[in-house]
Amino acid sequence: MDPQQLVAVHEIEQLKARYFRLLDTKAWDEWGEVFTVDARMEIPESDTVLDGRTEIVARVSSIIGPASTVHHGHTPEIEVLGPDDARGIWAMADLVTWTSASGEPRGFQGYGHYHETYRREGGAWRIATTRLERLRKDRC
Amino acid sequence: MDPQQLVAVHEIEQLKARYFRLLDTKAWDEWGEVFTVDARMEIPESDTVLDGRTEIVARVSSIIGPASTVHHGHTPEIEVLGPDDARGIWAMADLVTWTSASGEPRGFQGYGHYHETYRREGGAWRIATTRLERLRKDRC
Amino acid sequence: MDPQQLVAVHEIEQLKARYFRLLDTKAWDEWGEVFTVDARMEIPESDTVLDGRTEIVARVSSIIGPASTVHHGHTPEIEVLGPDDARGIWAMADLVTWTSASGEPRGFQGYGHYHETYRREGGAWRIATTRLERLRKDRC
Repeated sequence: MDPQQLVAVHEIEQLKARYFRLLDTKAWDEWGEVFTVDARMEIPESDTVLDGRTEIVARVSSIIGPASTVHHGHTPEIEVLGPDDARGIWAMADLVTWTSASGEPRGFQGYGHYHETYRREGGAWRIATTRLERLRKDRC
Repeated sequence: MDPQQLVAVHEIEQLKARYFRLLDTKAWDEWGEVFTVDARMEIPESDTVLDGRTEIVARVSSIIGPASTVHHGHTPEIEVLGPDDARGIWAMADLVTWTSASGEPRGFQGYGHYHETYRREGGAWRIATTRLERLRKDRC
Repeated sequence: MDPQQLVAVHEIEQLKARYFRLLDTKAWDEWGEVFTVDARMEIPESDTVLDGRTEIVARVSSIIGPASTVHHGHTPEIEVLGPDDARGIWAMADLVTWTSASGEPRGFQGYGHYHETYRREGGAWRIATTRLERLRKDRC
Protein backbone atom coordinates (compact mmCIF):
# COMPACT_ATOMS: atom_id res chain seq x y z
CA MET A 1 0.00 0.00 0.00
CA ASP A 2 1.17 3.45 -0.98
CA PRO A 3 1.01 6.40 1.46
CA GLN A 4 -0.96 8.25 -1.24
CA GLN A 5 -3.74 5.67 -0.91
CA LEU A 6 -4.01 6.57 2.76
CA VAL A 7 -5.12 10.03 1.67
CA ALA A 8 -8.17 8.54 -0.09
CA VAL A 9 -8.92 6.34 2.92
CA HIS A 10 -8.65 9.38 5.18
CA GLU A 11 -10.97 11.45 2.97
CA ILE A 12 -13.60 8.69 3.05
CA GLU A 13 -13.30 8.42 6.83
CA GLN A 14 -13.84 12.18 7.05
CA LEU A 15 -16.89 11.84 4.81
CA LYS A 16 -18.44 9.29 7.17
CA ALA A 17 -17.51 11.43 10.20
CA ARG A 18 -19.58 14.23 8.65
CA TYR A 19 -22.41 11.75 7.94
CA PHE A 20 -22.64 10.96 11.66
CA ARG A 21 -22.22 14.53 12.96
CA LEU A 22 -24.61 16.19 10.51
CA LEU A 23 -27.20 13.45 11.12
CA ASP A 24 -27.15 13.88 14.90
CA THR A 25 -27.09 17.67 14.75
CA LYS A 26 -29.95 17.53 12.19
CA ALA A 27 -28.14 19.65 9.58
CA TRP A 28 -30.21 18.01 6.83
CA ASP A 29 -29.08 20.07 3.81
CA GLU A 30 -25.41 19.53 4.57
CA TRP A 31 -26.15 15.90 5.44
CA GLY A 32 -27.56 15.35 1.96
CA GLU A 33 -24.24 16.41 0.46
CA VAL A 34 -22.50 13.31 1.85
CA PHE A 35 -24.48 11.19 -0.65
CA THR A 36 -24.18 10.92 -4.42
CA VAL A 37 -27.25 12.23 -6.24
CA ASP A 38 -28.30 8.65 -7.07
CA ALA A 39 -27.36 7.13 -3.69
CA ARG A 40 -29.21 4.09 -2.37
CA MET A 41 -29.85 3.36 1.33
CA GLU A 42 -30.96 -0.11 2.42
CA ILE A 43 -32.12 -1.01 5.91
CA PRO A 44 -33.16 -4.67 5.62
CA GLU A 45 -34.58 -4.90 9.18
CA SER A 46 -37.41 -2.56 8.17
CA ASP A 47 -37.57 -3.53 4.47
CA THR A 48 -36.45 0.00 3.67
CA VAL A 49 -34.90 0.92 0.32
CA LEU A 50 -34.46 4.62 -0.41
CA ASP A 51 -33.33 5.74 -3.85
CA GLY A 52 -31.62 9.05 -4.43
CA ARG A 53 -30.31 11.77 -2.14
CA THR A 54 -33.61 13.64 -2.21
CA GLU A 55 -35.61 10.65 -0.98
CA ILE A 56 -32.99 9.70 1.60
CA VAL A 57 -33.00 13.16 3.15
CA ALA A 58 -36.80 13.45 3.04
CA ARG A 59 -37.47 10.08 4.65
CA VAL A 60 -34.69 10.02 7.26
CA SER A 61 -35.35 13.60 8.38
CA SER A 62 -39.09 12.93 8.72
CA ILE A 63 -38.51 9.81 10.85
CA ILE A 64 -35.67 10.85 13.13
CA GLY A 65 -35.88 14.62 12.84
CA PRO A 66 -38.15 14.73 15.92
CA ALA A 67 -36.00 12.19 17.81
CA SER A 68 -32.93 12.58 19.97
CA THR A 69 -30.26 10.57 18.16
CA VAL A 70 -26.67 9.49 18.65
CA HIS A 71 -24.92 7.55 15.87
CA HIS A 72 -21.32 6.47 16.28
CA GLY A 73 -19.01 4.72 13.80
CA HIS A 74 -16.03 2.53 14.66
CA THR A 75 -13.02 0.76 13.11
CA PRO A 76 -13.63 1.50 9.42
CA GLU A 77 -12.33 -0.96 6.83
CA ILE A 78 -12.01 1.11 3.65
CA GLU A 79 -10.81 -0.45 0.42
CA VAL A 80 -9.90 1.90 -2.43
CA LEU A 81 -10.84 0.22 -5.73
CA GLY A 82 -9.84 2.98 -8.17
CA PRO A 83 -9.29 6.73 -8.35
CA ASP A 84 -13.03 7.36 -7.88
CA ASP A 85 -14.35 4.15 -6.32
CA ALA A 86 -14.09 2.56 -2.93
CA ARG A 87 -16.01 0.35 -0.54
CA GLY A 88 -16.02 -0.03 3.21
CA ILE A 89 -17.48 -1.53 6.35
CA TRP A 90 -18.10 0.42 9.57
CA ALA A 91 -19.07 -0.95 12.97
CA MET A 92 -21.85 1.25 14.40
CA ALA A 93 -23.99 1.96 17.43
CA ASP A 94 -27.06 4.15 17.60
CA LEU A 95 -29.37 5.46 20.29
CA VAL A 96 -32.68 6.87 19.06
CA THR A 97 -35.48 8.04 21.32
CA TRP A 98 -38.74 9.92 20.91
CA THR A 99 -40.56 11.64 23.73
CA SER A 100 -43.46 9.39 24.64
CA ALA A 101 -46.94 10.50 25.66
CA SER A 102 -45.86 10.17 29.29
CA GLY A 103 -42.89 12.46 28.63
CA GLU A 104 -40.36 9.65 28.95
CA PRO A 105 -37.84 9.02 26.15
CA ARG A 106 -38.68 5.74 24.38
CA GLY A 107 -36.86 4.16 21.46
CA PHE A 108 -33.97 1.79 20.87
CA GLN A 109 -30.26 1.25 21.24
CA GLY A 110 -28.82 -0.66 18.30
CA TYR A 111 -25.60 -2.12 16.96
CA GLY A 112 -24.45 -3.36 13.57
CA HIS A 113 -22.33 -2.74 10.51
CA TYR A 114 -22.71 -0.42 7.56
CA HIS A 115 -21.65 -1.99 4.26
CA GLU A 116 -21.02 0.85 1.82
CA THR A 117 -19.64 1.94 -1.50
CA TYR A 118 -18.21 5.38 -2.21
CA ARG A 119 -17.82 7.37 -5.41
CA ARG A 120 -16.02 10.62 -6.16
CA GLU A 121 -18.65 12.95 -7.59
CA GLY A 122 -18.38 16.71 -8.09
CA GLY A 123 -14.81 16.62 -6.74
CA ALA A 124 -15.61 14.96 -3.42
CA TRP A 125 -16.05 11.43 -2.08
CA ARG A 126 -19.69 10.62 -1.36
CA ILE A 127 -21.64 7.61 -0.15
CA ALA A 128 -23.06 5.81 -3.21
CA THR A 129 -24.70 2.85 -1.45
CA THR A 130 -25.16 2.01 2.22
CA ARG A 131 -26.74 -1.05 3.81
CA LEU A 132 -27.15 -1.42 7.57
CA GLU A 133 -26.88 -4.97 8.91
CA ARG A 134 -27.85 -5.21 12.56
CA LEU A 135 -26.19 -7.28 15.25
CA ARG A 136 -28.92 -6.38 17.74
CA LYS A 137 -31.50 -3.74 18.56
CA ASP A 138 -32.73 -3.30 22.13
CA ARG A 139 -35.76 -1.27 23.11
CA CYS A 140 -35.18 1.40 25.69
CA MET B 1 -3.87 16.73 0.72
CA ASP B 2 -0.27 15.65 1.12
CA PRO B 3 0.65 12.36 2.88
CA GLN B 4 2.88 14.44 5.17
CA GLN B 5 -0.20 16.23 6.50
CA LEU B 6 -1.58 12.86 7.55
CA VAL B 7 1.32 12.61 9.97
CA ALA B 8 0.13 15.73 11.80
CA VAL B 9 -3.45 14.45 11.81
CA HIS B 10 -2.22 11.14 13.20
CA GLU B 11 -0.19 12.83 15.94
CA ILE B 12 -3.23 14.84 17.02
CA GLU B 13 -5.39 11.71 17.06
CA GLN B 14 -2.76 10.05 19.27
CA LEU B 15 -2.82 13.08 21.55
CA LYS B 16 -6.57 12.75 22.05
CA ALA B 17 -6.24 8.98 22.53
CA ARG B 18 -3.91 9.72 25.46
CA TYR B 19 -6.38 12.34 26.75
CA PHE B 20 -9.07 9.66 27.02
CA ARG B 21 -6.87 6.88 28.40
CA LEU B 22 -5.05 8.98 31.00
CA LEU B 23 -8.35 10.53 32.12
CA ASP B 24 -10.04 7.18 32.70
CA THR B 25 -7.00 5.61 34.34
CA LYS B 26 -6.66 8.74 36.53
CA ALA B 27 -3.02 9.40 35.59
CA TRP B 28 -3.47 13.08 36.36
CA ASP B 29 0.12 14.34 35.96
CA GLU B 30 0.49 12.74 32.55
CA TRP B 31 -3.04 13.85 31.66
CA GLY B 32 -2.04 17.47 32.28
CA GLU B 33 0.68 17.16 29.65
CA VAL B 34 -1.90 16.77 26.87
CA PHE B 35 -2.85 20.44 27.37
CA THR B 36 -0.93 23.61 26.55
CA VAL B 37 0.06 25.56 29.67
CA ASP B 38 -2.61 28.19 28.87
CA ALA B 39 -5.30 25.73 27.75
CA ARG B 40 -8.99 26.58 28.16
CA MET B 41 -11.75 24.02 28.81
CA GLU B 42 -15.39 25.02 28.35
CA ILE B 43 -18.36 22.88 29.38
CA PRO B 44 -21.36 25.08 28.59
CA GLU B 45 -23.94 22.68 30.14
CA SER B 46 -22.50 23.43 33.59
CA ASP B 47 -21.31 27.00 32.88
CA THR B 48 -17.78 25.75 33.40
CA VAL B 49 -14.76 27.63 32.07
CA LEU B 50 -11.34 26.46 33.26
CA ASP B 51 -8.24 28.46 32.39
CA GLY B 52 -4.81 26.90 32.30
CA ARG B 53 -3.52 23.36 32.60
CA THR B 54 -3.10 23.68 36.37
CA GLU B 55 -6.73 24.65 36.96
CA ILE B 56 -8.01 22.04 34.49
CA VAL B 57 -6.16 19.21 36.23
CA ALA B 58 -7.12 20.44 39.71
CA ARG B 59 -10.83 20.82 38.96
CA VAL B 60 -11.37 17.75 36.79
CA SER B 61 -9.41 15.45 39.11
CA SER B 62 -11.35 16.69 42.14
CA ILE B 63 -14.72 16.12 40.45
CA ILE B 64 -14.23 12.82 38.67
CA GLY B 65 -11.21 11.46 40.53
CA PRO B 66 -13.55 9.59 42.92
CA ALA B 67 -15.82 8.43 40.09
CA SER B 68 -15.67 5.43 37.79
CA THR B 69 -15.38 6.94 34.33
CA VAL B 70 -15.32 5.81 30.71
CA HIS B 71 -14.74 8.41 27.96
CA HIS B 72 -14.62 7.35 24.33
CA GLY B 73 -13.87 9.43 21.22
CA HIS B 74 -15.07 8.70 17.70
CA THR B 75 -14.64 9.76 14.06
CA PRO B 76 -12.25 12.72 14.52
CA GLU B 77 -12.34 15.54 11.97
CA ILE B 78 -8.91 17.18 12.26
CA GLU B 79 -7.98 20.17 10.15
CA VAL B 80 -4.32 21.21 10.07
CA LEU B 81 -4.14 25.01 9.78
CA GLY B 82 -0.37 25.49 9.85
CA PRO B 83 2.82 23.81 11.06
CA ASP B 84 1.84 24.37 14.71
CA ASP B 85 -1.93 24.94 14.59
CA ALA B 86 -4.91 22.71 14.02
CA ARG B 87 -8.55 22.32 14.98
CA GLY B 88 -10.86 19.37 15.27
CA ILE B 89 -14.20 17.90 16.23
CA TRP B 90 -14.63 14.55 18.01
CA ALA B 91 -17.84 12.65 18.64
CA MET B 92 -17.81 11.40 22.23
CA ALA B 93 -19.62 9.27 24.80
CA ASP B 94 -19.01 9.18 28.53
CA LEU B 95 -20.21 7.12 31.47
CA VAL B 96 -19.53 8.63 34.89
CA THR B 97 -20.77 7.15 38.15
CA TRP B 98 -20.15 7.75 41.82
CA THR B 99 -20.93 5.25 44.55
CA SER B 100 -24.12 6.44 46.21
CA ALA B 101 -24.95 6.25 49.92
CA SER B 102 -26.80 3.00 49.22
CA GLY B 103 -23.71 1.56 47.54
CA GLU B 104 -25.23 1.72 44.08
CA PRO B 105 -23.40 3.48 41.24
CA ARG B 106 -25.23 6.69 40.29
CA GLY B 107 -24.29 9.20 37.63
CA PHE B 108 -24.86 9.76 33.95
CA GLN B 109 -24.27 8.48 30.46
CA GLY B 110 -23.67 11.29 27.98
CA TYR B 111 -23.05 11.98 24.32
CA GLY B 112 -21.81 14.96 22.35
CA HIS B 113 -18.99 16.56 20.42
CA TYR B 114 -15.72 18.13 21.48
CA HIS B 115 -14.81 21.22 19.47
CA GLU B 116 -11.08 21.80 19.91
CA THR B 117 -7.98 23.62 18.80
CA TYR B 118 -4.47 22.25 19.01
CA ARG B 119 -1.06 23.90 19.22
CA ARG B 120 2.44 22.50 19.01
CA GLU B 121 4.18 23.53 22.22
CA GLY B 122 7.45 22.18 23.62
CA GLY B 123 7.84 19.93 20.59
CA ALA B 124 4.48 18.17 20.93
CA TRP B 125 0.88 18.74 19.86
CA ARG B 126 -1.34 19.71 22.80
CA ILE B 127 -4.97 20.68 23.29
CA ALA B 128 -5.17 24.48 23.39
CA THR B 129 -8.96 24.86 23.71
CA THR B 130 -11.74 22.33 24.15
CA ARG B 131 -15.50 22.86 24.34
CA LEU B 132 -17.94 20.03 24.97
CA GLU B 133 -21.32 20.39 23.27
CA ARG B 134 -23.82 17.77 24.43
CA LEU B 135 -26.33 15.90 22.31
CA ARG B 136 -27.86 14.32 25.41
CA LYS B 137 -27.11 13.32 28.99
CA ASP B 138 -29.09 10.54 30.66
CA ARG B 139 -29.04 9.85 34.38
CA CYS B 140 -28.19 6.32 35.37
CA MET C 1 7.45 10.04 11.78
CA ASP C 2 7.56 9.00 8.16
CA PRO C 3 4.37 8.65 6.06
CA GLN C 4 5.50 5.09 5.28
CA GLN C 5 5.16 4.22 8.98
CA LEU C 6 1.52 5.28 8.79
CA VAL C 7 0.96 2.40 6.38
CA ALA C 8 2.02 -0.11 9.06
CA VAL C 9 -0.16 1.64 11.65
CA HIS C 10 -3.07 1.54 9.22
CA GLU C 11 -2.58 -2.16 8.49
CA ILE C 12 -2.60 -2.96 12.21
CA GLU C 13 -5.75 -0.89 12.72
CA GLN C 14 -7.37 -2.88 9.88
CA LEU C 15 -6.27 -6.09 11.57
CA LYS C 16 -8.03 -5.12 14.79
CA ALA C 17 -11.09 -3.96 12.84
CA ARG C 18 -11.35 -7.50 11.45
CA TYR C 19 -10.81 -8.92 14.97
CA PHE C 20 -13.92 -7.06 16.15
CA ARG C 21 -16.11 -7.72 13.12
CA LEU C 22 -15.29 -11.42 12.74
CA LEU C 23 -15.77 -11.95 16.49
CA ASP C 24 -19.24 -10.39 16.54
CA THR C 25 -20.35 -12.08 13.32
CA LYS C 26 -18.97 -15.40 14.70
CA ALA C 27 -16.77 -16.11 11.67
CA TRP C 28 -14.47 -18.23 13.82
CA ASP C 29 -12.11 -19.63 11.17
CA GLU C 30 -11.39 -16.20 9.73
CA TRP C 31 -11.21 -14.78 13.24
CA GLY C 32 -8.39 -17.23 14.09
CA GLU C 33 -6.34 -15.78 11.24
CA VAL C 34 -5.98 -12.44 13.03
CA PHE C 35 -3.71 -14.16 15.59
CA THR C 36 -0.18 -15.53 15.24
CA VAL C 37 -0.03 -19.31 15.60
CA ASP C 38 1.57 -18.92 19.05
CA ALA C 39 -0.62 -15.99 20.19
CA ARG C 40 -1.40 -15.47 23.89
CA MET C 41 -4.62 -13.98 25.24
CA GLU C 42 -4.81 -12.83 28.87
CA ILE C 43 -7.99 -11.75 30.62
CA PRO C 44 -6.85 -11.08 34.21
CA GLU C 45 -10.38 -10.47 35.55
CA SER C 46 -11.20 -14.15 35.03
CA ASP C 47 -7.65 -15.53 35.51
CA THR C 48 -7.75 -16.58 31.87
CA VAL C 49 -4.58 -17.29 29.89
CA LEU C 50 -5.01 -18.92 26.49
CA ASP C 51 -1.96 -20.10 24.55
CA GLY C 52 -2.01 -20.48 20.80
CA ARG C 53 -4.49 -19.62 18.08
CA THR C 54 -6.14 -23.03 18.30
CA GLU C 55 -6.89 -22.73 22.02
CA ILE C 56 -8.00 -19.10 21.68
CA VAL C 57 -10.53 -19.92 18.97
CA ALA C 58 -11.77 -23.05 20.76
CA ARG C 59 -12.29 -21.35 24.12
CA VAL C 60 -13.66 -18.00 22.96
CA SER C 61 -16.06 -19.58 20.45
CA SER C 62 -17.37 -22.01 23.07
CA ILE C 63 -18.02 -19.23 25.60
CA ILE C 64 -19.45 -16.46 23.46
CA GLY C 65 -20.51 -18.42 20.40
CA PRO C 66 -24.03 -18.84 21.87
CA ALA C 67 -24.15 -15.20 23.05
CA SER C 68 -25.20 -12.01 21.31
CA THR C 69 -22.06 -9.87 21.34
CA VAL C 70 -20.96 -6.37 20.36
CA HIS C 71 -17.27 -5.43 20.72
CA HIS C 72 -16.09 -1.97 19.73
CA GLY C 73 -12.55 -0.54 19.67
CA HIS C 74 -11.63 3.13 19.99
CA THR C 75 -8.67 5.54 19.69
CA PRO C 76 -5.86 3.07 18.96
CA GLU C 77 -2.32 3.99 20.03
CA ILE C 78 -0.08 1.88 17.76
CA GLU C 79 3.70 2.02 18.05
CA VAL C 80 5.73 0.40 15.28
CA LEU C 81 8.89 -1.09 16.82
CA GLY C 82 10.48 -2.63 13.71
CA PRO C 83 9.55 -3.93 10.26
CA ASP C 84 7.72 -6.90 11.79
CA ASP C 85 6.96 -5.80 15.36
CA ALA C 86 4.56 -3.36 16.94
CA ARG C 87 2.56 -2.78 20.08
CA GLY C 88 -0.64 -0.94 20.82
CA ILE C 89 -3.40 0.01 23.22
CA TRP C 90 -7.10 0.14 22.27
CA ALA C 91 -9.97 1.51 24.33
CA MET C 92 -12.88 -0.94 24.15
CA ALA C 93 -16.49 -1.54 25.07
CA ASP C 94 -18.38 -4.81 24.91
CA LEU C 95 -21.95 -5.96 25.37
CA VAL C 96 -22.41 -9.71 25.83
CA THR C 97 -25.73 -11.38 26.63
CA TRP C 98 -27.04 -14.92 26.77
CA THR C 99 -30.71 -15.82 26.62
CA SER C 100 -31.71 -16.66 30.17
CA ALA C 101 -34.12 -19.40 31.24
CA SER C 102 -36.88 -16.77 31.33
CA GLY C 103 -36.09 -15.78 27.76
CA GLU C 104 -34.60 -12.43 28.77
CA PRO C 105 -31.10 -11.46 27.63
CA ARG C 106 -28.70 -11.47 30.59
CA GLY C 107 -25.00 -10.67 30.61
CA PHE C 108 -22.77 -7.65 30.96
CA GLN C 109 -21.69 -4.37 29.45
CA GLY C 110 -17.97 -3.75 29.94
CA TYR C 111 -15.26 -1.20 29.28
CA GLY C 112 -11.48 -1.31 29.32
CA HIS C 113 -8.26 -1.31 27.32
CA TYR C 114 -6.56 -3.97 25.25
CA HIS C 115 -2.77 -3.95 25.62
CA GLU C 116 -1.33 -5.81 22.64
CA THR C 117 1.70 -6.74 20.59
CA TYR C 118 1.66 -7.46 16.88
CA ARG C 119 3.96 -9.48 14.64
CA ARG C 120 4.13 -9.86 10.88
CA GLU C 121 3.76 -13.58 10.19
CA GLY C 122 3.05 -15.24 6.85
CA GLY C 123 3.05 -11.85 5.14
CA ALA C 124 0.40 -10.23 7.35
CA TRP C 125 0.24 -8.40 10.67
CA ARG C 126 -1.33 -10.52 13.40
CA ILE C 127 -2.04 -10.18 17.10
CA ALA C 128 0.80 -11.87 19.02
CA THR C 129 -0.32 -11.04 22.57
CA THR C 130 -3.43 -9.36 23.94
CA ARG C 131 -4.35 -8.52 27.54
CA LEU C 132 -7.68 -6.98 28.47
CA GLU C 133 -7.60 -4.60 31.44
CA ARG C 134 -11.07 -3.59 32.57
CA LEU C 135 -12.20 -0.17 33.73
CA ARG C 136 -15.62 -1.55 34.71
CA LYS C 137 -18.07 -4.34 34.00
CA ASP C 138 -21.77 -3.87 34.68
CA ARG C 139 -24.29 -6.67 34.74
CA CYS C 140 -27.30 -6.25 32.50
